[in-house]
Amino acid sequence: MTDLSLMSRLTRSGTTKIVLLVMDGLGGLPRESGGPTELEAARTPHLDRLATEGMLGLMHTVRIGVSPGSGPGHLGLFGYDPLTYLIGRGALEAVGIGLSLTDQDVAARGNFCTVDATGTITDRRAGRISTEECARMVRLIEDITLPDVELIVKPVQDYRFVLILRAPGLSSSLNETDPQQVGMKPLVVEAQDGSAEASRTASLVNQWVAEVKKRIKDEHPANMVTLRGWASAPGLPAFGDVFKLKAAALAVYPMYKGLASLVGMHQVHGLADLDDQLAALKSEWDSFDFFFVHYKYTDSRGEDGDFDAKVAEIEKVDRVIPRVLSLKPDVLVVTGDHSTPAVLKSHSWHPVPVLFWAPGVSRTNPQVTGFGESQCLLGALGQFNATDLMPLITAHALRQAKFGA
Amino acid sequence: MTDLSLMSRLTRSGTTKIVLLVMDGLGGLPRESGGPTELEAARTPHLDRLATEGMLGLMHTVRIGVSPGSGPGHLGLFGYDPLTYLIGRGALEAVGIGLSLTDQDVAARGNFCTVDATGTITDRRAGRISTEECARMVRLIEDITLPDVELIVKPVQDYRFVLILRAPGLSSSLNETDPQQVGMKPLVVEAQDGSAEASRTASLVNQWVAEVKKRIKDEHPANMVTLRGWASAPGLPAFGDVFKLKAAALAVYPMYKGLASLVGMHQVHGLADLDDQLAALKSEWDSFDFFFVHYKYTDSRGEDGDFDAKVAEIEKVDRVIPRVLSLKPDVLVVTGDHSTPAVLKSHSWHPVPVLFWAPGVSRTNPQVTGFGESQCLLGALGQFNATDLMPLITAHALRQAKFGA
Repeated sequence: MTDLSLMSRLTRSGTTKIVLLVMDGLGGLPRESGGPTELEAARTPHLDRLATEGMLGLMHTVRIGVSPGSGPGHLGLFGYDPLTYLIGRGALEAVGIGLSLTDQDVAARGNFCTVDATGTITDRRAGRISTEECARMVRLIEDITLPDVELIVKPVQDYRFVLILRAPGLSSSLNETDPQQVGMKPLVVEAQDGSAEASRTASLVNQWVAEVKKRIKDEHPANMVTLRGWASAPGLPAFGDVFKLKAAALAVYPMYKGLASLVGMHQVHGLADLDDQLAALKSEWDSFDFFFVHYKYTDSRGEDGDFDAKVAEIEKVDRVIPRVLSLKPDVLVVTGDHSTPAVLKSHSWHPVPVLFWAPGVSRTNPQVTGFGESQCLLGALGQFNATDLMPLITAHALRQAKFGA
Repeated sequence: MTDLSLMSRLTRSGTTKIVLLVMDGLGGLPRESGGPTELEAARTPHLDRLATEGMLGLMHTVRIGVSPGSGPGHLGLFGYDPLTYLIGRGALEAVGIGLSLTDQDVAARGNFCTVDATGTITDRRAGRISTEECARMVRLIEDITLPDVELIVKPVQDYRFVLILRAPGLSSSLNETDPQQVGMKPLVVEAQDGSAEASRTASLVNQWVAEVKKRIKDEHPANMVTLRGWASAPGLPAFGDVFKLKAAALAVYPMYKGLASLVGMHQVHGLADLDDQLAALKSEWDSFDFFFVHYKYTDSRGEDGDFDAKVAEIEKVDRVIPRVLSLKPDVLVVTGDHSTPAVLKSHSWHPVPVLFWAPGVSRTNPQVTGFGESQCLLGALGQFNATDLMPLITAHALRQAKFGA
């Protein structure tokens, strides 16, 4: 496994163009023993042709036998070892609704809850209020101000919201206020490491909570908040610095825009669907040299347990491949951030199929006839960890110096 | 490579059942160039069918190119990196004869030797006395007592015995008393780290040796002892805690019972042969969720250099596979702790064939037609280190949470 510091030393800028096309949750399983996976069942003439011209492999985005969440899965794809670079829950929640975190930020996941007249929690999730009700509640508290700190509050989903405190010298070394059971009062926030930064942050948060309590105490059913998952921005080395790439993220969903922004990729905004993404790929082609294109629905249909619908989503992506190729990329990688087999209805540990196409500089295996998990077993790339993907990409894009003389 | 702390965090308890069937020394080599290995020569219809339904792979139980001993080989199978978790020779010797080590124990390998009238060693192995003579010698010294410490002395094989001192606050930081050559006297034991614990232990050992000397000085040819390989219990994290599994060991040989006990597996006693082991598997099925079944004779016949006899042992195991399957395990893994090719008559570094069967949740390779080393090269698991086996097992048993959101 190579590390980022080695890549920082070896990579060079260049003029080659790279497309990383991620079908979320691409990997699958057969519906019945001996049958095809979703990818194998899909009619993918363009991907199949690229498979015969390029290299296949199977990739573990976190580690062998580990089922990746979306955050770790994408960090792995971007070359960051997910076991080294951890993203706190508060940061992921913020990123998941499209907020960018600065290095001055401390973020928490918030829950609206219900307390009785004594302040004791009677429902930790306020009857699982709707997202609309959550948005209404956030409007009641979003304009709270405190001295010397910027406060950002945004609804997430159901009873969940995100709180960001933005100021120099804050710390996320704070306890959670959710007592994790009803019949107790929300906990007071205290510094966990005894630092002045954490004490100051705790004091700010407690003032904020007191003001929130005052404002929503007569609402129903949500009339109080708890805060969890304190996190700072993960402080990842910038993707552009490590790999000497000008990178653009062409994503529709906030979570994936956010993950790309955590590593410093440029965000192309206003993309509503795959057609928009392909149009942006073309219009931005001259401005960037690495394009992360994210397609969500393969994962969604896998999570639904709908094998056929996942097959159809894969086929939709196959149909836009000619539009990608018309731009003449030097390296095109088609893969996933993890597997989401329809039969499991969840992310899984199965290694992700990888199609790696780099005309003229890659080896092929003449036994390969198309793109699918079983074919990937024959592939020239073998099985590897995701942290090896960016080294392979920059190598095939002729953007690496040799190591040593 | 995943580590135990990651697995501790991700694994969850569940209701799925797992069988790890270890044919000791399973991996082999062709008798003549181009011919089959022992496993390939064996007629194994049941294993062959499972191979087509499941996944094959090749596993390095310690590291690529390293020939594992039984201890490291099994630690690797159980998920413990054998280069991180070392078992001292004294502990292995104790475990090898079926003794359980507590965290109060300090163990040593002992040799009976021959000394002349001046106490100088003339034969470091006392003419390689028989195991029976060793047992007789042990009977002469096994009832020696010392204040505040329990003493356990057991014969091992030939001139070798094991000594355990059991008391709070002992230390294994002691020198060996065997001078490693004749013409010298046995060394006095001294604390190697200057600690009070080691000094006290050294004093106890020296008192014990003095009493032994008194009791056997007129025996022949063994009339003195030396002590080597001082070790404490290795203090391994408990298998059940790390993987959330209730594990039972169904082994016949003391060494493998002992290795399983070192990681905290429950011992099922009184098993004399494979038939007993299968009967126990059935009778204990509802009481545990992980079963380590160990078969010794594949290794024994490999060590003998008897290719055909090893083939026959593999076929014996194949014949009991239907009895395993009748219990409907969720995950069945058939593998070895290392290779013991008959042509080498010894443990070897060759990666061990792995058959991994987990119906409904594993991929297959349609090119695989049976279980054997060459087929394993086509397998969906590729080549991996043994420390990845338990992550794969718990994943396929649906006993892992995903990593990150």
